[in-house]
Amino acid sequence: MSVEKLEGINVFPAGLSSGGGTAVLAPPSPAPSAPVLAEWTRQAKPSTIAEMLKVMSRPGLISFALGLPSPDSFPTDAYAEAARRALEDRNSLQYRPPYAALKRQIVEIMAGRGVRCREEQVFLTTAAQQGLSLLARLFLDPGGPVLCERLVYTGFQQVIEPYLPEVLAVDTDLDTGIDVDQVEQILESGKRPAFIYVITDGHNPLAVSVSAEKRLRLVELARRFGVPLVEDDAYGLLHFGRPVLPMRALDDKWVFYVGSFSKVMAPAFRMGWVIAPEEMVPLLGCAKDASDIDTSNFSQRLVHAYVESGHFAGHLPVVRDSYRLRRDTMLRALETHFGGTGARWVTPTNGALIWLELPEHVDTTALLKVAVETEGVAYVPGNAFAIDGSGIGRSSMRLNFSHPSPREIEEGIARLARVVRATFG
Amino acid sequence: MSVEKLEGINVFPAGLSSGGGTAVLAPPSPAPSAPVLAEWTRQAKPSTIAEMLKVMSRPGLISFALGLPSPDSFPTDAYAEAARRALEDRNSLQYRPPYAALKRQIVEIMAGRGVRCREEQVFLTTAAQQGLSLLARLFLDPGGPVLCERLVYTGFQQVIEPYLPEVLAVDTDLDTGIDVDQVEQILESGKRPAFIYVITDGHNPLAVSVSAEKRLRLVELARRFGVPLVEDDAYGLLHFGRPVLPMRALDDKWVFYVGSFSKVMAPAFRMGWVIAPEEMVPLLGCAKDASDIDTSNFSQRLVHAYVESGHFAGHLPVVRDSYRLRRDTMLRALETHFGGTGARWVTPTNGALIWLELPEHVDTTALLKVAVETEGVAYVPGNAFAIDGSGIGRSSMRLNFSHPSPREIEEGIARLARVVRATFG
Repeated sequence: MSVEKLEGINVFPAGLSSGGGTAVLAPPSPAPSAPVLAEWTRQAKPSTIAEMLKVMSRPGLISFALGLPSPDSFPTDAYAEAARRALEDRNSLQYRPPYAALKRQIVEIMAGRGVRCREEQVFLTTAAQQGLSLLARLFLDPGGPVLCERLVYTGFQQVIEPYLPEVLAVDTDLDTGIDVDQVEQILESGKRPAFIYVITDGHNPLAVSVSAEKRLRLVELARRFGVPLVEDDAYGLLHFGRPVLPMRALDDKWVFYVGSFSKVMAPAFRMGWVIAPEEMVPLLGCAKDASDIDTSNFSQRLVHAYVESGHFAGHLPVVRDSYRLRRDTMLRALETHFGGTGARWVTPTNGALIWLELPEHVDTTALLKVAVETEGVAYVPGNAFAIDGSGIGRSSMRLNFSHPSPREIEEGIARLARVVRATFG
Repeated sequence: MSVEKLEGINVFPAGLSSGGGTAVLAPPSPAPSAPVLAEWTRQAKPSTIAEMLKVMSRPGLISFALGLPSPDSFPTDAYAEAARRALEDRNSLQYRPPYAALKRQIVEIMAGRGVRCREEQVFLTTAAQQGLSLLARLFLDPGGPVLCERLVYTGFQQVIEPYLPEVLAVDTDLDTGIDVDQVEQILESGKRPAFIYVITDGHNPLAVSVSAEKRLRLVELARRFGVPLVEDDAYGLLHFGRPVLPMRALDDKWVFYVGSFSKVMAPAFRMGWVIAPEEMVPLLGCAKDASDIDTSNFSQRLVHAYVESGHFAGHLPVVRDSYRLRRDTMLRALETHFGGTGARWVTPTNGALIWLELPEHVDTTALLKVAVETEGVAYVPGNAFAIDGSGIGRSSMRLNFSHPSPREIEEGIARLARVVRATFG
């Protein structure tokens, strides 16, 4: 791909979107010259992830751009064995009801996370992204209000984009997470968002975990105002110290929890889950049917066989250790190369990301092209995560530490410091 | 599950849906007592497929209910080998751009179907269902109009349900397919559906393939009125004679083609594709990202390895032969047990289904409970496919012949004839 595409991260190629209003009504035929697209496509942003995946294949590039798991953390032999076992039963290849044995394993995994739930409350999804997509479907009407942070996971922005929603955006504190005072103000003002979206641990892109006190306050607000919380816990199992209880541990009626095997096994199994009140599960089933009928039964059996073999529980600490090592390597490299430059970052307790704030005069979107071309290093510009098209995050960047090796992290941060200095002094 | 649930196939459990209007405004707190759901959930139908999957596990039951592939058609050793090969490359486990080598194989498969397309027009999906879901997202605005047949695949109904669309419904001729005169009348009247949904071959549930002449007329209408055609070809490769060209072979601008490996490999790989104009592919990418980020890269590699090994091309005729044998067995059994009773059916040229019309005094919805309980035989009542809630299909049933063995087909049709006679004389 051309590097130019990266610059246009918030700009969709002109002319692609052709809403109903633009149809040319030329006699004698009233027919449009191309298919008329739905309204939302006029505002559609290109897929940041898809663009980033393309740039990743550039030879020699050190990429901090994507949230990919570490490739050396994949126990491929154990996966191959699990695949073999899954295929032993021909039922693995059919449409089948969601695999109850896997749901029971998820109940166990959730118990380890401090959450009590029942098998009937576990809804299997095609990874966490589908969990978010189905929950939006469940709660959000077209044009309806939704509450989230100003800087937020682009995949969530894509989920709500087709609804052309009223976005009620709040700030985030880099040490304690989502600004709950602002949430409360919005609710007090009478606004009733369809739901509040919160990434509790290992925030994407801000790397913060929400403080225990704020979790409690959010749950209280959800109850007081009757507004559901969608808790995105994709990185919850990847903690580097003492984990904090997810909001779902505090409330089983208003909190809709989204979990995933993508970060702790591999993205390619596309296996995730939602914990929801049991009476909501049939409606999630309707939305799921419409979306892709069922979650690959082969993947369900494969993940189940892997967990059952004990590899999951055994491997999780290995992944955590590997990520902690990479995180610490990046923190040291940042100290070495960005210490005293006015840059800011916070030590993450979860996940795979560090949010780096540079001095105001640095434009990380403009910098990216130079960084890729002259130094062979990539990241995601902070502004790519801005939900409201404002300049927020303009001088920041999201750095992933899970995919590059420790050596690449050291080298990549040095390259980054060089290109920032060379470009902005 | 209880058999009662089957009876309630179009009736969602009462009280589940709680739209905004039902919130009780009790002082002192203005909060609703349960999460407020999106408007569409008030009209949501339960998942027919999910319900049927549950009943399938009843011991001794012969089920003609689901469109499951024949279990003995799965070359599981070849799949296991393909899985092993896919796992040899750690890239198989990551998020990755759609696998170009698989797209090129699909271009070849499409060429065998008589369709010329380019790799850049192939968009990989989480099976055909997601293809339909994403195309609806691309074209349909909330409350917008959409054109389809009165009796139509329930999965398609679920796709459009959340849009609360204006459904422009037309009839179907059991020998030649969708009523194109009615389509033309609707378009002539000035209505402009967001798209026209057509299952070209092996219609679900009506088992008909659209005549070549009607395909041509539909494409001409699409061009004349500027309305896209969504061509669902999930069963296209499963033909029992000389195949007819899909509409996409006649037009590459207005026809959006949906294909699938589910029926010719296995549903559990969740692998399908859309053929669309290249300039639409980025927008499909946005919708796909929102839905589930990417189609399992592991599945992509596995399917690719299977096709590359030559097993796909070699196995397809085996599947067709196996299905033809089952179809012919069912046709003979119908002749034996329903000949001269006033029942009607048509010989399908594609797919896995036969549509059986019984005399009008037969109520197949009421019959189902008796059929399952007294004779141990299941089917889907025709009315379950009615898009407008009318009584259409009330005396018909959809019979699947791909999943039961020939012996089960003979026995099951005999049971069905007995229970129809015993109940309705």
